[in-house]
Amino acid sequence: MKLLRVGPAGAERPAVLAGDGTVRDLSGITADIDAAFLAGDGLDRARSALADGRLPVLDAPGRVGPPLARPGKIVCVGLNYRDHAAETGAEPPAEPVLFMKAPNTVVGPDDEVLVPRGSVKTDYEVELAVVIGRTARYLDSSERAREVIAGYAISNDVSERAFQLERGGTWDKGKSCETFNPFGPWLVTADEIADPGALPLRLWVNGELRQDGSTKDMIFGIEDVVRYISRFMVLEPGDVINTGTPAGVAMGRPGEPYLRAGDVVEVEIEGLGRQRQTVGSAA
Amino acid sequence: MKLLRVGPAGAERPAVLAGDGTVRDLSGITADIDAAFLAGDGLDRARSALADGRLPVLDAPGRVGPPLARPGKIVCVGLNYRDHAAETGAEPPAEPVLFMKAPNTVVGPDDEVLVPRGSVKTDYEVELAVVIGRTARYLDSSERAREVIAGYAISNDVSERAFQLERGGTWDKGKSCETFNPFGPWLVTADEIADPGALPLRLWVNGELRQDGSTKDMIFGIEDVVRYISRFMVLEPGDVINTGTPAGVAMGRPGEPYLRAGDVVEVEIEGLGRQRQTVGSAA
Repeated sequence: MKLLRVGPAGAERPAVLAGDGTVRDLSGITADIDAAFLAGDGLDRARSALADGRLPVLDAPGRVGPPLARPGKIVCVGLNYRDHAAETGAEPPAEPVLFMKAPNTVVGPDDEVLVPRGSVKTDYEVELAVVIGRTARYLDSSERAREVIAGYAISNDVSERAFQLERGGTWDKGKSCETFNPFGPWLVTADEIADPGALPLRLWVNGELRQDGSTKDMIFGIEDVVRYISRFMVLEPGDVINTGTPAGVAMGRPGEPYLRAGDVVEVEIEGLGRQRQTVGSAA
Repeated sequence: MKLLRVGPAGAERPAVLAGDGTVRDLSGITADIDAAFLAGDGLDRARSALADGRLPVLDAPGRVGPPLARPGKIVCVGLNYRDHAAETGAEPPAEPVLFMKAPNTVVGPDDEVLVPRGSVKTDYEVELAVVIGRTARYLDSSERAREVIAGYAISNDVSERAFQLERGGTWDKGKSCETFNPFGPWLVTADEIADPGALPLRLWVNGELRQDGSTKDMIFGIEDVVRYISRFMVLEPGDVINTGTPAGVAMGRPGEPYLRAGDVVEVEIEGLGRQRQTVGSAA
């Protein structure tokens, strides 16, 4: 099932993308796609309503927002692709590198991304996002890790490299600027993704292919990452894990072609849809 | 005004500590003390209901929970006291060091703190917490920074030093374990704290005074910290900033006396009340 939220920012309506390409209204089933929806029987109710043809078609759904209301937290895995670690000059990590992104960085997949004031190194990162559906602590097997995953989505883990690496302290300073996590278009439930560990992911800037990888090249696979994080913090329904980015970010390219106002970023992961952001400047 | 939340974990009731020492029920004014309460006219309504004697006394309020429902994010300032930077072997930072703590680490001021599985370096940190009441981005003056502060509370920024410093990646890995942010007992509104930059803060373990500082020794003062953070992320009502800890943490003491199951931690900041946690082990 492909869940989405449509309508003006802050007033999105829950919906499902049906197999026939229509967008169906989920607001009779749930007020929102959020932690309570995922933790309860929301997915089952939505699935059966969709199967029974009980969901009305939304004729003009409008803007697509993030497919999940505000996450409880966004945990990110750094340097999780060998080629990306190499391009940043880092050794492949011995265990997952974790950092956090403020939950209010989440915007819709096609919303404007703002270069922060004073920024000269705003960068992009296509990432497979894992959406948590069950509370997880001290998971002891891959099987248990699989069970807590509600589904998958695309994240663009936008990053300001000078804020991240040259201003002291942790990476978080360069990861949490407003609009820095375009998310969606869909939350695709786990049953629809046969192998999340073999998904092509790509990112273009102004039509030029900049990142072209596959989740099969992750250093730490999806279940290992979920299991690892659960040893250090409690994951809850509605939490998001950004699982890392392959090579090709601006920081690792000749001439360091960072994002500027007017650029267009397109992001795609097979089975999870496509994003398109125009870059603006924080006023 | 001293706001608090009383009752079982997850089912707390909003309340006010009145000048006569009674706990008054706020549930006729608001369902909870949360972002919506702070962003709207909740504080004004609570204040006038208290002044008019319209709030019923809660005779047996029970457990004290955190004085704020789940924060949107917890932003922490590292190494913000000269003596603490020195004891950890770090240079005083040139600009604020920021990191984040998962919002679901927040527990009541007297709740059990759990040493994580596999931990041998669980440490304590008394900190002045700032609670944000208005949306803040790119604040351009101390005056504006003051305006977005709803009030203050005590945080114990519990930290696992091996997870924080010896496992690769950022500090976040050692800051977000379950129960790692005892918070409260009260959210004291800003009007009640004449000078938040001159508050004595103390922490005891098993009756031994371990930290004994004053917020006047912060390297970056409260308004500077709020203003600085607002350049890197949008602060919102219900967000919390932990502003750093003075010297005396276990990591900086002879023999590194980290917390163990059975220890009792008491934490106090003048005007903000007192916490008392018993240390247990994550099962």
